[in-house]
Amino acid sequence: MKIVLAYSGGLDTTATLARYREEGHEVVAVYVDVGQPGDLGEVRNRAVKAGACAIEIVDCRANFADEFLAPALAANAMYEGRYPLVSALSRPAIAKAMADVALAHGADAAAHGCTGKGNDQVRFEVSLRALIPELTVLAPIRDWELSRDAALELLEATGVEIDITKRSPYSIDENIWGRACECGVLENPWEQPPADAYEWTNDPAAAPAVPMETIVGFENGLPVTLDGRHLSFLEILSALNELGGRYGTGRIDMVENRLVGIKSREVYECPGALALILAHQDLESLVLERDLAKEKARLEIRWAEIVYNGLWHSPLREALDTFFASSQQGLDGEVRLSFSPGCCTVTGRRSPVSLYDESLATYSESDSFDHTDARGFVRLWGLPVAQAAASRSAARAASKVLA
Amino acid sequence: MKIVLAYSGGLDTTATLARYREEGHEVVAVYVDVGQPGDLGEVRNRAVKAGACAIEIVDCRANFADEFLAPALAANAMYEGRYPLVSALSRPAIAKAMADVALAHGADAAAHGCTGKGNDQVRFEVSLRALIPELTVLAPIRDWELSRDAALELLEATGVEIDITKRSPYSIDENIWGRACECGVLENPWEQPPADAYEWTNDPAAAPAVPMETIVGFENGLPVTLDGRHLSFLEILSALNELGGRYGTGRIDMVENRLVGIKSREVYECPGALALILAHQDLESLVLERDLAKEKARLEIRWAEIVYNGLWHSPLREALDTFFASSQQGLDGEVRLSFSPGCCTVTGRRSPVSLYDESLATYSESDSFDHTDARGFVRLWGLPVAQAAASRSAARAASKVLA
Amino acid sequence: MKIVLAYSGGLDTTATLARYREEGHEVVAVYVDVGQPGDLGEVRNRAVKAGACAIEIVDCRANFADEFLAPALAANAMYEGRYPLVSALSRPAIAKAMADVALAHGADAAAHGCTGKGNDQVRFEVSLRALIPELTVLAPIRDWELSRDAALELLEATGVEIDITKRSPYSIDENIWGRACECGVLENPWEQPPADAYEWTNDPAAAPAVPMETIVGFENGLPVTLDGRHLSFLEILSALNELGGRYGTGRIDMVENRLVGIKSREVYECPGALALILAHQDLESLVLERDLAKEKARLEIRWAEIVYNGLWHSPLREALDTFFASSQQGLDGEVRLSFSPGCCTVTGRRSPVSLYDESLATYSESDSFDHTDARGFVRLWGLPVAQAAASRSAARAASKVLA
Amino acid sequence: MKIVLAYSGGLDTTATLARYREEGHEVVAVYVDVGQPGDLGEVRNRAVKAGACAIEIVDCRANFADEFLAPALAANAMYEGRYPLVSALSRPAIAKAMADVALAHGADAAAHGCTGKGNDQVRFEVSLRALIPELTVLAPIRDWELSRDAALELLEATGVEIDITKRSPYSIDENIWGRACECGVLENPWEQPPADAYEWTNDPAAAPAVPMETIVGFENGLPVTLDGRHLSFLEILSALNELGGRYGTGRIDMVENRLVGIKSREVYECPGALALILAHQDLESLVLERDLAKEKARLEIRWAEIVYNGLWHSPLREALDTFFASSQQGLDGEVRLSFSPGCCTVTGRRSPVSLYDESLATYSESDSFDHTDARGFVRLWGLPVAQAAASRSAARAASKVLA
Repeated sequence: MKIVLAYSGGLDTTATLARYREEGHEVVAVYVDVGQPGDLGEVRNRAVKAGACAIEIVDCRANFADEFLAPALAANAMYEGRYPLVSALSRPAIAKAMADVALAHGADAAAHGCTGKGNDQVRFEVSLRALIPELTVLAPIRDWELSRDAALELLEATGVEIDITKRSPYSIDENIWGRACECGVLENPWEQPPADAYEWTNDPAAAPAVPMETIVGFENGLPVTLDGRHLSFLEILSALNELGGRYGTGRIDMVENRLVGIKSREVYECPGALALILAHQDLESLVLERDLAKEKARLEIRWAEIVYNGLWHSPLREALDTFFASSQQGLDGEVRLSFSPGCCTVTGRRSPVSLYDESLATYSESDSFDHTDARGFVRLWGLPVAQAAASRSAARAASKVLA
Repeated sequence: MKIVLAYSGGLDTTATLARYREEGHEVVAVYVDVGQPGDLGEVRNRAVKAGACAIEIVDCRANFADEFLAPALAANAMYEGRYPLVSALSRPAIAKAMADVALAHGADAAAHGCTGKGNDQVRFEVSLRALIPELTVLAPIRDWELSRDAALELLEATGVEIDITKRSPYSIDENIWGRACECGVLENPWEQPPADAYEWTNDPAAAPAVPMETIVGFENGLPVTLDGRHLSFLEILSALNELGGRYGTGRIDMVENRLVGIKSREVYECPGALALILAHQDLESLVLERDLAKEKARLEIRWAEIVYNGLWHSPLREALDTFFASSQQGLDGEVRLSFSPGCCTVTGRRSPVSLYDESLATYSESDSFDHTDARGFVRLWGLPVAQAAASRSAARAASKVLA
Repeated sequence: MKIVLAYSGGLDTTATLARYREEGHEVVAVYVDVGQPGDLGEVRNRAVKAGACAIEIVDCRANFADEFLAPALAANAMYEGRYPLVSALSRPAIAKAMADVALAHGADAAAHGCTGKGNDQVRFEVSLRALIPELTVLAPIRDWELSRDAALELLEATGVEIDITKRSPYSIDENIWGRACECGVLENPWEQPPADAYEWTNDPAAAPAVPMETIVGFENGLPVTLDGRHLSFLEILSALNELGGRYGTGRIDMVENRLVGIKSREVYECPGALALILAHQDLESLVLERDLAKEKARLEIRWAEIVYNGLWHSPLREALDTFFASSQQGLDGEVRLSFSPGCCTVTGRRSPVSLYDESLATYSESDSFDHTDARGFVRLWGLPVAQAAASRSAARAASKVLA
Repeated sequence: MKIVLAYSGGLDTTATLARYREEGHEVVAVYVDVGQPGDLGEVRNRAVKAGACAIEIVDCRANFADEFLAPALAANAMYEGRYPLVSALSRPAIAKAMADVALAHGADAAAHGCTGKGNDQVRFEVSLRALIPELTVLAPIRDWELSRDAALELLEATGVEIDITKRSPYSIDENIWGRACECGVLENPWEQPPADAYEWTNDPAAAPAVPMETIVGFENGLPVTLDGRHLSFLEILSALNELGGRYGTGRIDMVENRLVGIKSREVYECPGALALILAHQDLESLVLERDLAKEKARLEIRWAEIVYNGLWHSPLREALDTFFASSQQGLDGEVRLSFSPGCCTVTGRRSPVSLYDESLATYSESDSFDHTDARGFVRLWGLPVAQAAASRSAARAASKVLA
């Protein structure tokens, strides 16, 4: 069988590669760069040593930003109101790259290195099945229940050396949208995350004391400028990751509901993602028509749920994205962000298509709002409730008469 | 006509009182204390001078906390995701007090002092009509379009003196749940709120540098202890208002959609309310079953909308409250909050009824999760999407054959 | 002022035309044909006699079907689950025609003939304001409170003769999507609608005893064939109106919530609309992926609400339509309808892109479903509820120990 | 191990009983009567022969009606808008009875006889785990993959005789809420259900020609009278099953989405359930306040989903039921149903707490609605959309100037 393997260069996937090889399969190792740290030469080297028939290194960062993060921003995507879907967004992007490689190499199967307890297995498998229905999807780590010793033994046979003593006490996943950290001491949700759980962000106590402002410019809902300079989505995100990281913003500590039915405690660092979502939401508050905004807010929750739950490559996500795309047309404007220790806040927003109308909103004399309209409005708005109350009151009165 | 008037002691309602008196009506002035600043002796004095036949001063704070704020906390109520409904909650509480006074005095009508452009007129009128269907509801400020000069003239006739030179450049509303500030320079949403827009909260730059922790204890979803001391809701809220205010937390600067169809820019200070909601939501993340949590989140949005829109005294709010009450049963636990300059964050949560199960969540060897369950789960979870993809893929293949 | 008037040829709009003329305005009478009965020669004649400076007769039927009814079908639009939005759909279509005429004639204002109590005033006014923001919108019937006698007097002066003795005891509105009937004896919701309330549909007792089948073919969610013949939407609708009418199907008797806050009892006849929606929904049950179908069902309710509430020409309707359009791509297939007295039912459905897979669904031996997948699925699906139950059970046990 | 087995008296569960016995387990056979046909003497006889250590026959009908069907009626429960949850409601009721027996007998495990492809396995397992967290739940039919021959062989050994030649070509499930029929020729969704798929209902062509009316009286949302006679829920349901069955109403033919990810074609007969839901919904249209009604409609969909998906014994269902209970308080009134061949329709509704107010709704002269209120209402209602349109129009104009 020819198998495309999602290859990270770490212990588990190298051992998997070796075992597949041992079993007589051809393995194409795919390393997808979504912004995680990694020594590509070393990765390539290990894959070859472990017996890959080919190694494909895909720089997916720009595509990840444009095809996955931009829709997430349009959806202000936050799972359970807090988590901007760091890994949930990279999995379908990686799966897409794997599917492309599988097609190019005429592979029979695709394998991922997830365990049976997280969400990522779902994201990989559903994505791969949706992208290439006839592909066999394998989850060796989960299905083999490979012990650590067995993995090390396999590794030894390949000649690859991995220093497992330097291993993090946490389980980490990183990409340009953020960094996820779980396990270790974090598994007790009463324990405060220790300092070493954070890597992208300064402790707010160590952040610069003097606040700093930056202006994000949007066109059609997408960030296009930073302080007036035209930049790509990826560049703006990187700059805000750096700036927010410096000020210690973008930390998230939460207990979340995994799709597989358990609660887990997670720590995230997403300074750039949170800053962009904050700015984007704020601009929308100025520009989106009220009913559209309210419905969009409901659909945002749903979008985050299905993407969290592995359904990126689904007809529902596609349909929701058309809704969001419609809402973003003409969404131009600027938002001023202020970074101070631990805080990123909006201090101003403006737009050529703002629906905020000072002449309507003002309490000053230049008011153009017709106050007499309100009288009728209030009466009809409250009529159903008034009738319900009158009906109840009459029923109470009637029952007193009877009693 | 005997009229119950919502009396603030300020220019507008004093002038209104005087004019009703002039028109031959009997006026019962009602001053409802929901925690706003005010000199009650002075208030009483002015009402009498302006010709009130009676003045009722109702200390509504505890009742406001227990009957209005506690349900709001159960609902994690935030209009448009950000505004904890400061005035929106006090209006129906004040209306309830007015209705009680109206019944006690056998009044024919109730009058409020709102203009025609805000949400408060709706909140008062719908509440009053729902509470006493046969009461006439009056909105003199809106319907008379009383000019400032005319108001001053009426005032002069009463002998009441109000120093209008000390008037705030903003329009302010305050109660124990928070402080709302609008108008003046804030009417330009691009302008950063000036320092004088804030009164309850320090500038974060001037906040104590050393963070401070406090532990909020909950029973059945209600805060009952602070650092182990048993306190009332009102006491805990006050303590958190003070603490958060000191650290400069709880500031909100937003553009919101008013019910009357316009967008307005508002600045709020709600250190205690935001801290309580944050802690409460976090405890829920540990204790609430997943599907219940997700549906509750959707209903919270609806609750905030209808209360914002003046429908507190409505059958829908009552029905939603039974849902929330059901969700809060047995919701016990503790949340550790950390206050640092500008930031209030959760650093730990625990509960005797936590659904977080370390033995399920852990990646360590004591794992009690059956990984083989995941295989079938993933396959069936993704089956509809896989079938949709296969069907599309087959349709594409068929159309290629035809072409 | 040059006023475009929505002209029906009836008493009220003819009197309105005459009065505008008397007041010195130029009136362009617009008669929009959406399928209602009417003698166009007579309409033209009356408008001229009443003093119109121009009369525009717009045959909007095909456009109404394609631009308004087709989206309604995609949305399976049923207000409060029952009413297919007969008048709610024609109003924005008529408003669009009026706006086009207003632009062509350079009009200053547009006037409609609705009263202050129904939904149609909202639909006209919001649509007209959205289409031409600078146009003045007039509601003479509502705002003048013109008495019947005054209207007759105005009419007399124009020389137009309208036989008001032939007037229906009901208030009727008709277009190709259905017929609405209200008022008269129908105002008592306990009274059964009398036979004369119906005009399009036979009494089921008088319908042909022998059932009749017809097959509707769909492409991209739109009906394109009837029993294999290629026909336009309008032709298919007309044929189903005729067929359903003959069999006495499509009658609706309901109490609905109007936007203006009151409940009203309405009787509708919509044989074609209901047959098309029934067939369309059934085809969707075969073809739409589950999560997409469920979300679509929720959005259908919202679509029907906003269109009922006059917000056709709104950004939210546009955004929802992109969602629905996405869901309709490739929605091809056939549905067999059976008409019998009073009943229209589906007796079969098939599609080249059906997601129904007999080899998965079957209980026979050719089963391709892996039953072992279910074990893990069920365990993880139920895990959150099982944990919640275990937690409660433990809490109960603990409290018993304490007691 | 002591196992409580859901025992139907049929081939599969008798063979299961025998095999458990063979394996050395003690089996308590539980037969729960929810209204399905069955010879209790024969059932008892077979269980004993097959080796049950005890047989418990539980007449659950009244409890099923009051504790499961009454909440379903309050929720107007219809999965995917059409299926009133026949089996989905009986499973948790049966599970509850099994749990009671398990507690009484001190059982270690509970076993159900469902396959791996339907929804019922989920309903049983989640319910049992929720009711008794420490109970082991077994699904022998699914997990053993017992062949038909093996089952017959096991049966033979017990001495039980089951005439499998009389077996239905369909898979049937019945209880007082309706009858479900699947498999056989029905597995082709294009085929019309043959006459023998129906058992409770006449072919409409064979129904009495003369329509018949009946009046259902409700108190607090529950049916309490039929044509004025006070009857239990169960009695009213039975009477309507009989009446509707005679007129050939209550047939449903649909393709539905199963929880396990596949679509299935199902035929149901639910004359009584559909008549009650129809009448109940209609009464609600007269009595429920608008916003409550709209939110309730959304929650009804969710209720039906979770109950369909096996989550009856869940915190979310409990919370939703409190919402519905709140909505049903004081929901009194009468609905007149008319049965004619194939049709059950409402021809009138009335209530002492009706919110329909003829004096507001009428177009006659006794009108008490203030038409001038509408002017302001319409303007403010449409303001956000008008502003959005004006903003777009200005943007278009500006871009033309630039071009």
